[in-house]
Amino acid sequence: MAESPVNDAPFRLIDDVEFGEGVIVHPFTNIYGCSIGDESRIGPFVEIQAGARIGARCKVQSHTFVCTGVEIGDDVFVGHGVVFINDKLPRSTNADGELQNEDDWTLLRTFVEDGASIGSGAVLLGGIRVGAGAMIGAGAVVTRDVEAGETVVGNPARAILQAERR
Amino acid sequence: MAESPVNDAPFRLIDDVEFGEGVIVHPFTNIYGCSIGDESRIGPFVEIQAGARIGARCKVQSHTFVCTGVEIGDDVFVGHGVVFINDKLPRSTNADGELQNEDDWTLLRTFVEDGASIGSGAVLLGGIRVGAGAMIGAGAVVTRDVEAGETVVGNPARAILQAERR
Amino acid sequence: MAESPVNDAPFRLIDDVEFGEGVIVHPFTNIYGCSIGDESRIGPFVEIQAGARIGARCKVQSHTFVCTGVEIGDDVFVGHGVVFINDKLPRSTNADGELQNEDDWTLLRTFVEDGASIGSGAVLLGGIRVGAGAMIGAGAVVTRDVEAGETVVGNPARAILQAERR
Repeated sequence: MAESPVNDAPFRLIDDVEFGEGVIVHPFTNIYGCSIGDESRIGPFVEIQAGARIGARCKVQSHTFVCTGVEIGDDVFVGHGVVFINDKLPRSTNADGELQNEDDWTLLRTFVEDGASIGSGAVLLGGIRVGAGAMIGAGAVVTRDVEAGETVVGNPARAILQAERR
Repeated sequence: MAESPVNDAPFRLIDDVEFGEGVIVHPFTNIYGCSIGDESRIGPFVEIQAGARIGARCKVQSHTFVCTGVEIGDDVFVGHGVVFINDKLPRSTNADGELQNEDDWTLLRTFVEDGASIGSGAVLLGGIRVGAGAMIGAGAVVTRDVEAGETVVGNPARAILQAERR
Repeated sequence: MAESPVNDAPFRLIDDVEFGEGVIVHPFTNIYGCSIGDESRIGPFVEIQAGARIGARCKVQSHTFVCTGVEIGDDVFVGHGVVFINDKLPRSTNADGELQNEDDWTLLRTFVEDGASIGSGAVLLGGIRVGAGAMIGAGAVVTRDVEAGETVVGNPARAILQAERR
């Protein structure tokens, strides 16, 4: 456990984050209430919300959003501009016309297992499990579980054979 | 009418914005010349351009870009990493080889009616109307109007029956 | 050659950038080791990595990521939230379980020729050539070369006739 990232950088907001050893956090980052494992690296323009967990030796690249309810294993690559989701039917207000709060929706948890890679620009709906070593193609919109070792591409994302990898 | 957001946060650029009561604006935001209605919330890494109008009790989530020409009603949810567009054939320079300016293109206006929800990662082409209560799926690329109450998904976005909601 | 952008703005990180004359760089930008030609404009929340080259009179709009290995010609429009990629099979760690470094992957170079336009939300896989004057539709996921003057849309991106332009 470390008190802070090992690097210094301007324009960071870091609040109540549990850091492993040797974590690097780039500038223009907004991370709070989450945990980040040993030697992981967080890119610029990234937000990581409370309760999210990121394992060791991960790369979370620029412009990516990791929400509450996401658990990422070790050795995972998360590309640039990736968006996680934790709500099935997001609405701004509840049936009474009041702003939704935590009581008005069900948190969908997403799990990304060890060694998976999520291509840049991918969108992952909530409540999904991405198996170990799986690869999500750039720009894919993932609407259901991805098997370990599987590669998926497209909108909605579908599995492809390794030979078709583009 | 309020003079400013009700919260304080670092790394914000707020210039000539008309605020309703109780607006929250998160850090790392660049908003100018727009209006934001009562109790709406603007997430981090968001830009809202001049002339855009956002109603009351909306959520505009992180990494989203709202351009000139966009009018958003009340109680609208705009997810993370959503991109609005206001130009049909964007070019950097005009036929004379000079940088385009406001005389070189036609502003396409987009309207999002009350209670609609725009999923994270969605892209909305310019000149579109999203009807009241419509739902745009995560990662959808919306190329034409969406009817009130309709749900659309995919690239290009197509309507689905409620039963197919994924 | 200029020493700096012609404008001043807060919240910028500019390190070792080769500027042409009259370049404008907006706030919330992270640019390093790259070159930017005369009169080009760089939007907010943009990262441009070392070795990237951007020509003259380009617009690189907000929330866009330009990686190492990307060369952009003159008069190119790059929309909002565009993501370039330079790695075919990104992984966080190598076969030895160590964080990947520059020896563990092959840099794929991408070329965008003069006068091309890249729509907002597009994702461009690495190793691609976008021909002069080509237009990439908003939200397209470009997986192979685009011919000069061609318009492509969709995921994966396919050519459309001009008459079909949406």
